[in-house]
Order: sequence, then structure tokens, then C-alpha cells
Amino acid sequence: MGNAPELIIGISALRNGLIDILKGSIAGSVLGTLLFGLGITIISGGLKKPVQTFDRDMVSINSALLMLATFGLVIPAVFTFSSNVNQEISLEISIVLLLIYLASMADTIMTSRSPVGRKGIEAALKEKGEEQPEVAEVFPNWSRNTALGILAAVAVALALVSDLLTGSLQPAADAMGLTPVFAGVFLLAMVGNIPQYMNSVSFAYKSRMTLALSINLGATTQLALMVAPLLVIAGSLMGLHMNLLFSKFELVGIILSVIIARSLIADNTSTWLEGVMLVGVYAMLGVGFFYAPAR
Amino acid sequence: MGNAPELIIGISALRNGLIDILKGSIAGSVLGTLLFGLGITIISGGLKKPVQTFDRDMVSINSALLMLATFGLVIPAVFTFSSNVNQEISLEISIVLLLIYLASMADTIMTSRSPVGRKGIEAALKEKGEEQPEVAEVFPNWSRNTALGILAAVAVALALVSDLLTGSLQPAADAMGLTPVFAGVFLLAMVGNIPQYMNSVSFAYKSRMTLALSINLGATTQLALMVAPLLVIAGSLMGLHMNLLFSKFELVGIILSVIIARSLIADNTSTWLEGVMLVGVYAMLGVGFFYAPAR
Amino acid sequence: MGNAPELIIGISALRNGLIDILKGSIAGSVLGTLLFGLGITIISGGLKKPVQTFDRDMVSINSALLMLATFGLVIPAVFTFSSNVNQEISLEISIVLLLIYLASMADTIMTSRSPVGRKGIEAALKEKGEEQPEVAEVFPNWSRNTALGILAAVAVALALVSDLLTGSLQPAADAMGLTPVFAGVFLLAMVGNIPQYMNSVSFAYKSRMTLALSINLGATTQLALMVAPLLVIAGSLMGLHMNLLFSKFELVGIILSVIIARSLIADNTSTWLEGVMLVGVYAMLGVGFFYAPAR
Repeated sequence: MGNAPELIIGISALRNGLIDILKGSIAGSVLGTLLFGLGITIISGGLKKPVQTFDRDMVSINSALLMLATFGLVIPAVFTFSSNVNQEISLEISIVLLLIYLASMADTIMTSRSPVGRKGIEAALKEKGEEQPEVAEVFPNWSRNTALGILAAVAVALALVSDLLTGSLQPAADAMGLTPVFAGVFLLAMVGNIPQYMNSVSFAYKSRMTLALSINLGATTQLALMVAPLLVIAGSLMGLHMNLLFSKFELVGIILSVIIARSLIADNTSTWLEGVMLVGVYAMLGVGFFYAPAR
Repeated sequence: MGNAPELIIGISALRNGLIDILKGSIAGSVLGTLLFGLGITIISGGLKKPVQTFDRDMVSINSALLMLATFGLVIPAVFTFSSNVNQEISLEISIVLLLIYLASMADTIMTSRSPVGRKGIEAALKEKGEEQPEVAEVFPNWSRNTALGILAAVAVALALVSDLLTGSLQPAADAMGLTPVFAGVFLLAMVGNIPQYMNSVSFAYKSRMTLALSINLGATTQLALMVAPLLVIAGSLMGLHMNLLFSKFELVGIILSVIIARSLIADNTSTWLEGVMLVGVYAMLGVGFFYAPAR
Repeated sequence: MGNAPELIIGISALRNGLIDILKGSIAGSVLGTLLFGLGITIISGGLKKPVQTFDRDMVSINSALLMLATFGLVIPAVFTFSSNVNQEISLEISIVLLLIYLASMADTIMTSRSPVGRKGIEAALKEKGEEQPEVAEVFPNWSRNTALGILAAVAVALALVSDLLTGSLQPAADAMGLTPVFAGVFLLAMVGNIPQYMNSVSFAYKSRMTLALSINLGATTQLALMVAPLLVIAGSLMGLHMNLLFSKFELVGIILSVIIARSLIADNTSTWLEGVMLVGVYAMLGVGFFYAPAR
């Protein structure tokens, strides 16, 4: 359920007609997680131990899925830019992405191995005997009904807050002299991902790097395979023209950041300097988005 | 001799003036092999064993050559799109690609190690003691003369069938309302590659993943290094303007699919879900090619 | 101090107003090192031993930094091409790149581990016991004062030669009918890198592949993180419009060659054929640059 907030914020943004900001926040969430989130996670791990190692095989399964999911996500925009044809294929692509997501769910159920969820990773790590199970520490010991009740309450609260948030985003951006692109890509995406970043930074600081990296990679995969396609389909049902047509700069940013993330994981070690460089690339893209014109 | 059919079909298409379809079929063969072929191969392996492993080193040599060959193949198109100059460099690039192919042949002869052929891979695997030699099973025990005779007969038959095939392709595509791009990229490329796909799927189902993956990667490398350059040179000798100027969408598709294929191999394991995602990316590109305008 | 010649040649080119040639030589140095330099190094290693292996972890740290640095280097050009806005961000990006370089210096001092320098690599290899320390052989046994004196004399001589070189480059290029792009990308970059190529080729021939590869990757990282940003900042202080706006073809060439270099290193082995292919890709790009129009 880790992506429920993003879905709720997204639908709230759709209802308020903030489609450009919403697309920006999807692109921004990918860039933010793969550059900023991964960066501060690796720095945090580096503060504890100069060279952190992680389980390449487990992180690697995540990152293969990440690459496939993200390349799927950008196909509509690539198609529009590369062929001079007035045909929009976001809805078709979203349906294929969602089918792939269902296949990944089926895989999780069949094999009890969850390549994109935290629980599955923890179970697998436990099996390998590499890390102590700290699940009890992390998750409170609620009964099923209590948990569902709390979830429902949180969802309602979140929906209210989201409406306030997305409703006030445009005026706030205007007041600060920021473009909607920058507001979506950097501000909205950042706000939505803070809890996830805190989580992964704290795991990294406990030297649980495999888990910390997988949180970031898994969240991006779910964003590309589930959240973004559902928002396109929801937009289409609501009669709104939500699509996956990112700007060229967003496109190049997404593709480069996925290649970078994969690349860092290919060797199963990380140093704080790699983290600094990831945050640096994020800052450099930020300079670009600050000056980028409105869509 | 695995690429003889492609060469014969290609020259037959050239003679019929079907240059757009031929270029489409080269692009389609790369996309088809690296996304669809690799995808169904990995799914097939996944049906037998949830997590298949393969010899990373051997597959990796193939995939390094694949990346170099494919990036060479796209240089003429990249050059044309990125510099506003009316100069076509397909012929020069084809000559360099063919020289590299000859170097790879020299390497095979000198070291008796064939990085792109099935026989070399089987020999190497045998040496490593990882797989039982099944060569006898797979290849019939013909004498040299019988083999050459059969080869000649098959080539003649193939040339006749190719002429029928390529001659009837355009009318068939028109009748079905398909663009020449889609017909070339998806139909012609698919027909030509079915035997190869069947081969690799069946090896994967016997859990011989290293061989199954190498068949797909090797075929793509040979296509980029030998078949495509020979067709450009043949076209030039025949006074036809055959070139390697792929469309932008083909270009991005080729580059992304090579990066994806490399990426999946970086961890030396595969799961059926990765196969499903590869086929999914192929389907998404298919949606794009269906709507793509004629060149 | 390995990059001092490049800085001195660069500032001399700036003073002579050869900004296009200078930008070309930065792009050319990246392409030359990652394709030609790495290529002949790998061929040289392959002449000694058919399959050379190297320490993946050590080369990999270098190549992760390389990818991050190079992607940062191309962000200004990517931004300009992808957003239709008349805003140039080379100076901002150069400052971020330089900050990252300072962070990497801090890392070297703190951990006595130099991921981009030869000395650190030799020390680390010695620790691992993989190679005999040959430092004494390689570096003459000068006193500190002698060394500094020689350094100063060489720098002055270099500055004089650089002025002659860059001053005569444009007329020479004109006389040979070469465009400034080709002169910068291929001739100037090649001349500046010959000593480095000779070094890495000779180490490779002694089967010291880890060191030989690291020299090439480290030099490119320093070029992207230190030389190029310093030249942009120096240009800005001198009131000249030096920027990092590479041409589209340079851009694609840089990105492809970084991906290729990373890719070859992912498997920790190299064969002479891979070297031949790298040189082949370099030759193919060379054909493109030969025909590329002036900026």
C-alpha cells in the first residue's frame, strides 16, 4: 500500500485540473527517487562505513524491472517526439503497463517472492541469513481490524490534505515565481516522497543497504507500472486528457537517471562520493527545470 | 550460415525495390530478437525453473559485441538527425562494420573460440563442464557433400519463396490496411525469425539458458555486423539507394532494447516476469509502429 | 597533475578565441579516451593474453564516477536542445561539477583512497596483493625541489608550445580542408592525449589491465569534473562565452561511448576483438565528424 498516497494525491490533482503539475510530479518522483533519494541513502550509508556493500542479486532483480517499467513509461512521449503523427498512445501503453503490473502481482502470489515490496526483500534476506529480521521493530503490532481502520482514517485524512495541497500549489508556485513544471517536478514530488526518503536513509544508516536501495528502486517501479497508468486510465474515465507526454528534458532526465541507477548497482558497493554525485546530478537537472518554460 | 536466409530475403526485397520494408525488417529483427525473442526465451526458461541462471561471462562477451555492433549500425541515422547536412554515410559505415565482422571471423579461426556462433558456445560450455554436449542430437550426421548439396537446394528454394514473399508483402500489407513500416518491422522480421525463436525457446525449456540467450544475442550481432552492411553494399552495387537511415522511433527503440538486453544479463539470472516485461515493451513499441506514418 | 597540459592548452585556446575548437577538443577527448584509448589499450592487452581479466570492483568505482561526471557534463547541451528557451546554464552546471570534484578530493584525502588517480589504484592493488608494486620503476627518484623545478619548467615550455599549437591549428585545418569541428574533435584531442595512450597501452601490454583501464577512465572523469568546468569558469572571468553546448552528434557520441565503456567493464574480461570494435566505433564517428558542418 506504499503508493496509496501518491494515487490519492494524483487523483486529487486530476480533479483540480492540474494535469501539467501531475505529469511533472510523476517525472519528478522518478528523478527524485533515483537521484536524490538514492543519493542521500548512499551518503547516509557512507557515513556509517566508507564502502558499503549490498546483495547485488536482489537489488539487481529490482533494477531490471525498474528499467523495463521506466522505458515503458516513456514510450508515448518518445513516440510523439520521434514520429510526426497526431496520434496519442498513452492510454494503450498504460493498459499494457498495468497488465505487466498484474503479472508481477501474480508472480508475487505464486512464488511468495516479492521483488518490489519491502516485505519480500526482508523475507529473502532473512532466508539468506544476511540481516537480522527487524520487522517487529519497524512495524507496530496491530490487529488486522485496527490496521484496516487506521488505514481508512489515514486515507481520508490524506485525501483532505491532498486537496488542500494541490489546490494551494498553483497559487503558491505563482507567488514564489516558480513555473508549474518546477513546482510539480521538484516541490510536489519531493513532498510526497519525504517519508520514503526518511525510511531508506535510516535503513542505510543501519548498514541495511540492500533494503534501503530496494525501497527506492521498488517505489519507482511501482510508480511506473501502477500509479502512472492508473492515473491515465482514471483521467480517461473522468473525461480529462491525462497522458504520459513528458517534456524532452524530463524524458532525457528519466532515461539518464535510470541508466545511472542501474550503473551504480552493477558493482555491489557504494561510497558516499557516489551519493554526492547523484545529488549533484539532481541539482544540475534542478537548474534546468528552474529555467524550463511552462509546457 | 544461420544468416543466409536473411541475406537472401534481403537481396530479394532489394531487387523488388522494397527498400523501406527492408530497412524496417532490419530494425524489426533487432527489436524482435532483443525484446520478443529474448522475452519468450526467458518465459520458457521460467516455466521450467522459477529463477534460471546462466553463465554471465559467456553471455556477456556476446552482449558487449552486440552493443558495439548495434551502436555502429545506428551511427548513420544518428548523424543525419543530429547534423543538418545533406551527406549520407551509410556506405562508409557499412564498410567499417564489415571490416569488424572480418576481424571477428579472424578471431574465431585463430582462437577456435566463436563468440557469436552456437558451435563455439557449445564447445566452451563443454570445456567448463556445465552442460552435456548435445551437438550430435541437434545436428544430423551428414557427409560434407550431402550437406553442401542440401544447402544449395535449400538456398534456391529459399530464394524462390523469398521472391514470392516479398513480392506479395506490399499488396498484403495494403489489403490489411497496414503501413509498410509496420509490415516490415513486425511481419517480415517476425516471419524470418520464427525458426530462431523456436530454437532458443526449446533450449531455454531444457534449462540450457546460456545457449538460448546466446542464440538471440549472436543473431542480432551478426545482423548488425554482416547482414545489414552487406545489403547496403549490395544495394550500392545494384545502383539502389539502400541505406541505414532508420526512423527516429526505430532508432530509439533499437538503442533502448540493446540497453535493456545488456541490463537483464548483468545479473546472471532470469525470471519469467522479466520475460513478460520484455514482451510487454515489444507490444508497446508495436502500438507505436502501428500508428507510425509511412516514411 | 595529469590534467595540467589540458588546462594549459585549453586556456591558450581560449585566449586565441578558439572556443569552437576547444569545445570540440573536450568532446573529442572524451570520445578519444573512451573509444580509441580504451580500444588500443584492450588490443594491446589482447596481444599478450587472449582473454585479459581485471579487478572489476576497482575499475567499476572509476566507471560509476565517470558516468555521473559525463552525464553532468552534457546537461547544459541536453537542456538547450530539449527546451526551447534562450537560457544558458553552463556556468551554473560547471560550478556544481567543480563542487563535486572538490568532494572527490576531500574523499581522497580523508580515506587515502584515490578512485581517479594512478597512485591510489597502485596502492590499492598492492594491498590486494594482485600486482607487484612497480612504482619505483615508473617514477624517477627525484627530490621534492627537483620535481617542483622540473614541473615549473615543463609548464612554461608547454604554455609556449600550446600557443604555437593552437595558433597554428586553424590555418593548418583550413589548409588541409578540415572543418574546425574535425580539427578540434580529432586532431587537437588526439595530440593532447598521446602520452596518456602510450602509458595505458604499455601497462596493458604488461598485463596490468586494472591500471591501464583506470588511467583512461580516470582521465575522462577528471576532464568532465575539473578541466571542462574550470575552462567555462575561466572563460566567464575572461569575458568570453565559453560554454558546454556540444553539438547533437557530439552529445550522442559522448553518451553512447560512456555507455559502451561501462558496458565493457561490466564483465571483468577483455579480448582484442572488443578493442577492435571500440576503435571501429571511433572510426565510424570520425566519418561523421569529417562531414559535420561547422558550428
